[in-house]
Amino acid sequence: MSERFTVTYHVRGTAADIEARAQGIAVEQSVEMPLAAIRDEMVLSDIVGSVEHIRDLGNGVFAVAIGLATATVGQDAGQLLNMLFGNTSLHDDVVLKDVALPESLTQLFGGPRHGIAELRFRLRLHDRALTGSALKPQGLPAGDLATLAEHLTRGGLDFIKDDHGLADQSYSRFADRVGACAAAVARGVRSTGHPTRYIPSLTGNLDQMRARAALARDEGLDCAMLAPMICGFPAMQALVSEFPDIAFFAHPSMGGAARIAPELLIGKLFPLLGADAVIFPGYGGRFGYSRETCRDLADNARHAGDGMKPALPVPAGGMTLERTKEIIDFYGNDTMLLIGGNLLLAGEDITRETERFTRAVGEFSL
Amino acid sequence: MSERFTVTYHVRGTAADIEARAQGIAVEQSVEMPLAAIRDEMVLSDIVGSVEHIRDLGNGVFAVAIGLATATVGQDAGQLLNMLFGNTSLHDDVVLKDVALPESLTQLFGGPRHGIAELRFRLRLHDRALTGSALKPQGLPAGDLATLAEHLTRGGLDFIKDDHGLADQSYSRFADRVGACAAAVARGVRSTGHPTRYIPSLTGNLDQMRARAALARDEGLDCAMLAPMICGFPAMQALVSEFPDIAFFAHPSMGGAARIAPELLIGKLFPLLGADAVIFPGYGGRFGYSRETCRDLADNARHAGDGMKPALPVPAGGMTLERTKEIIDFYGNDTMLLIGGNLLLAGEDITRETERFTRAVGEFSL
Repeated sequence: MSERFTVTYHVRGTAADIEARAQGIAVEQSVEMPLAAIRDEMVLSDIVGSVEHIRDLGNGVFAVAIGLATATVGQDAGQLLNMLFGNTSLHDDVVLKDVALPESLTQLFGGPRHGIAELRFRLRLHDRALTGSALKPQGLPAGDLATLAEHLTRGGLDFIKDDHGLADQSYSRFADRVGACAAAVARGVRSTGHPTRYIPSLTGNLDQMRARAALARDEGLDCAMLAPMICGFPAMQALVSEFPDIAFFAHPSMGGAARIAPELLIGKLFPLLGADAVIFPGYGGRFGYSRETCRDLADNARHAGDGMKPALPVPAGGMTLERTKEIIDFYGNDTMLLIGGNLLLAGEDITRETERFTRAVGEFSL
Repeated sequence: MSERFTVTYHVRGTAADIEARAQGIAVEQSVEMPLAAIRDEMVLSDIVGSVEHIRDLGNGVFAVAIGLATATVGQDAGQLLNMLFGNTSLHDDVVLKDVALPESLTQLFGGPRHGIAELRFRLRLHDRALTGSALKPQGLPAGDLATLAEHLTRGGLDFIKDDHGLADQSYSRFADRVGACAAAVARGVRSTGHPTRYIPSLTGNLDQMRARAALARDEGLDCAMLAPMICGFPAMQALVSEFPDIAFFAHPSMGGAARIAPELLIGKLFPLLGADAVIFPGYGGRFGYSRETCRDLADNARHAGDGMKPALPVPAGGMTLERTKEIIDFYGNDTMLLIGGNLLLAGEDITRETERFTRAVGEFSL
């Protein structure tokens, strides 16, 4: 039998019907047709999905492990997603829970090209947790976002990213914004001596994202953000491969909450495709992820295995300065603390509030 | 106030907290920061989302209508999706239910370039329902898929599409497959005189999809399939614009079942981006869509409004020959009946079984 990888689904069902349901998923995610109509021996033995095991998790939920042929993925990250959950995403009794990929696929997609160690090296930080904030709100012209970027830089942040709502709108063109913000951050860096990184958000189709990544590189930037569920896995795969010097931050927009386990999608698949850092909704903020989900997600990002570099977990979404110690205690130092809106509440006092934040992270790091 | 569009979410909540929750969504989907930290008057008046109304639907569910600024979308279909559901997709109490787009956005994205009328014109069919089947299973070499395509063509089908699992795998390269299948369908067409269309599936990143669409066009094909949730909205937007002669079929892979209403995602958004036909899981098959969802989805596809051409609904996923009359009675003639795996069960008898199917559609059309 050809090489396979194991996909785990959590399926609602009963002991009486789960075997048939598992077999149904194995067929749906591979040949998608009645097996009786398949004559080709190779397809039957090598391509049809197989039920590897079924485990009763209680409360009417079963863990179903399906083996799928590695050959079905080809070389395409989109097809990987299609094989993992394409048609089965349309069945509302199933959650895509986990995947164990063979070395051939982790090598193909490559994982983070830089990972935590390189991000730390660029920032000249080898111990404490990392800090970040976001440029917002969308609607501001590039000049105002740049002013904000300079204030945040002067507060000593490690990373300043575009809000994920900043795209290429008439009131703030990407090309204007990236130039203005890169220059503003550079001014702040000259003042503080700390090599703060600006992370522009790449949007649009592959041509546009590619042109924007090149613009960012020409501005001397070495980080960029994208939202894999918006731009598509294939676009991310292409960009990561074409811009080996850029560290990629994955944004969870359109990542759903219910149908693909976040610890898999954000914690494993985004790093697999090359995310050096993964932004996710931290527990206790305004999103509903549990502590357990956040811990598993961060663990997955940092231990993707099979020789992949660790990706940096970035809990976000309702963080506050007051939670600095708690968050570092929970996630450890190999974490970026991202405070967006709550830092901006300081208004004119933004630089000092940012300093308080960066000092707190230094103080509470483990 | 600048132009806005209205997005409707179904939100689980209580009468006591729904107003605050609705306001939270309006902020999350626009500026994503505390309003108190926004100084810019234009942003406050023109960009911050507004709660337009809240309706109690009973059973703890509320319809919440949020107005978002058209300017936030820019020109990008990915950013449209980001504005509609980006971060809110991470909240599991919310379903994206509907959107009412202004003419400026429907004109920008353009809707189906061909639609039902042009598909009928190409097939020289002006009354009965349309028929289709799929080439599968994945794992077969191009030659075997081509043989199957010829058998199906000789049965008189209108459309023969690639299974959505056919990508660019080592055992069946796209370039080999498209050439072999186009030639096979052409042979069948010479025999029947009926202008059956072959619909190859475009996968990979935008560069690859573009090259494959060009290959298909060079083979004389004028239809192609893609999965918008796999390739990404921005890639679809680009392809539809670059290949104005190709009629696009949207596949629902990764379309989820629970978090975006299918009648919106498949029935409205895919056509908005230019899908001339939308494939979806029909009620009564192996997927769980209700009759009501299927009716609304088909209605939406055919009546996208604002001068957009009607898109062809293609119910699929467990269709059988025996259901032909029922399906036409339910959806009407402006529908394609797609029988995949169940037709293939006929084995050697595939051409005759296909003829039975195409005759039944002729007989039962309204």
